[in-house]
Amino acid sequence: MSILVVGSVAFDSLETPSGKRERVLGGAATHFALAASFFTKVRVVGVVGEDFLPEHEAVLTDKGVDTAGIEHVAGKSFHWTGSYMKDLAEAETLATYLNVFADFEPKIPASYLDSEYLFLANIDPVLQMRVRELMPKAKLIAGDTMNYWISAHRENLLKVMQELDVLIINGKEVLMLSDETNWVRGAKKILEMGPKSLVVKYAEHGVAGFFSDRILEKMELRDEEERQIFRAPATPVEEVVDPTGAGDSFAGGFYGYIASQGKLTPDVYRTAMFYGSVMGSLAVEAFGTERLQRTTREEIEERFQHLKAISHL
Amino acid sequence: MSILVVGSVAFDSLETPSGKRERVLGGAATHFALAASFFTKVRVVGVVGEDFLPEHEAVLTDKGVDTAGIEHVAGKSFHWTGSYMKDLAEAETLATYLNVFADFEPKIPASYLDSEYLFLANIDPVLQMRVRELMPKAKLIAGDTMNYWISAHRENLLKVMQELDVLIINGKEVLMLSDETNWVRGAKKILEMGPKSLVVKYAEHGVAGFFSDRILEKMELRDEEERQIFRAPATPVEEVVDPTGAGDSFAGGFYGYIASQGKLTPDVYRTAMFYGSVMGSLAVEAFGTERLQRTTREEIEERFQHLKAISHL
Repeated sequence: MSILVVGSVAFDSLETPSGKRERVLGGAATHFALAASFFTKVRVVGVVGEDFLPEHEAVLTDKGVDTAGIEHVAGKSFHWTGSYMKDLAEAETLATYLNVFADFEPKIPASYLDSEYLFLANIDPVLQMRVRELMPKAKLIAGDTMNYWISAHRENLLKVMQELDVLIINGKEVLMLSDETNWVRGAKKILEMGPKSLVVKYAEHGVAGFFSDRILEKMELRDEEERQIFRAPATPVEEVVDPTGAGDSFAGGFYGYIASQGKLTPDVYRTAMFYGSVMGSLAVEAFGTERLQRTTREEIEERFQHLKAISHL
Repeated sequence: MSILVVGSVAFDSLETPSGKRERVLGGAATHFALAASFFTKVRVVGVVGEDFLPEHEAVLTDKGVDTAGIEHVAGKSFHWTGSYMKDLAEAETLATYLNVFADFEPKIPASYLDSEYLFLANIDPVLQMRVRELMPKAKLIAGDTMNYWISAHRENLLKVMQELDVLIINGKEVLMLSDETNWVRGAKKILEMGPKSLVVKYAEHGVAGFFSDRILEKMELRDEEERQIFRAPATPVEEVVDPTGAGDSFAGGFYGYIASQGKLTPDVYRTAMFYGSVMGSLAVEAFGTERLQRTTREEIEERFQHLKAISHL
């Protein structure tokens, strides 16, 4: 089943304890699409400038990603400059050049309209909502957001959240969005705010999934135990080279696996959390998209089995 | 099999977002012994003052804990005053009155000398070493420590670490002790410093176990996958009332389960990490020892099964 992802396609200039890179391919939609491409067909909606060359587009098309929805316009692509020198766990933004992304107006190619899986990457919730409305046939909708939209565009974000089957955010964002200090209470409060389920990312500590009754109606349940919460660990990584895109790669693996299964059961949801963790752990082992470009379905499967082995009795 | 634990038996005055308590029963050896008592026979070596009344001792003896090694001397018991008002994840020490604990000189009752499992709770590493030397028959030795001993008594601590089959510390202590910024590299470096295995506590994110070849010689291995690392999640807790003693309760459940099995296999070690997590999650649900006093083997088993259900595919 095809996923349509809308989000940024960008260039990143990065500084981490492992080195520096100028203008490597990045952006939430890029990382998401690459990670998901190992599981299912992916279609991208985004905008780029004249600096986005055929060699950049090939990074996606080489993996079978459909780039018909990447609009090329005059000007420069979105360019983010960040540093992880102080703390690998938190990027310090040095400069953000929105460039052509400032006027991004998502357009859905006719060939994308039958996409059943929709992923709204971290962009202005007004645009997320517009894309959602353009895709009435989407049967499962997932989305991401960030601290800026939570604090400064809360009302718009709350509208999008009503539409989401899965909200994927990090631990800090859970506390911020819910105004709670306890992560379990925070997650439950967020489920009451709209999304049918919630996946919380905790970097090296893996992820936690929270399920409301409304998502459970979409699933085939085995027993009560499965109703509330599920935890998947992260693959231990000895050298985090570049954390940029780890969360989007998680989301791509997670949602790509779900779309590949065609139906949403608790088993599918949980297994997807493991595959997401695998893709996130791979992504951070090199700068930009390097690591996902050179991984294989076999390596992903090996890492999935390893993750099970180190977490299951 | 009997565990001998040496450590503090104390009173704690606590302030948390859930309330205040004056002079509740606490101390590392107390929390450890209570948690371990649900799995095996526990013997305590410690020292208390005249304020330690029969009702306090009964908290332990009611669970079958052998308190023959708790020495009663003139003066007051160790008394710690702490606050979690700023951050539930980190205690702020308001006052420490060592009292009779300042001159603690561990004495092992003759009836304790056949203990095969030794737990050296967080005390001066010089005392930990002395107790280890008094117990030549101990076949498995585990121990805890804290930031103070890591920074100010490092050489003495390194000597104790040579003796440990299991070192149990938290994530921050791993980075401090190893002088690394990555938790996996840090853990591996610590294994090279002496302990045969390492359990790292990450509060609500569970625990990670790291195994050296030297601990693996003591185990029956199934395959290579089991050699390096294992992760166990924590039971999600919606209201952390008092985090004091969570780590000691983890250690008690973990080590108590191991001692109850009589042999150390990878399965036993990993299952013990789950039982440890269960005891830690119970401990924080009420002040002091309240919650562990009123739990039952049945409740522990239920929570263990729940923890498996929310983490296993």
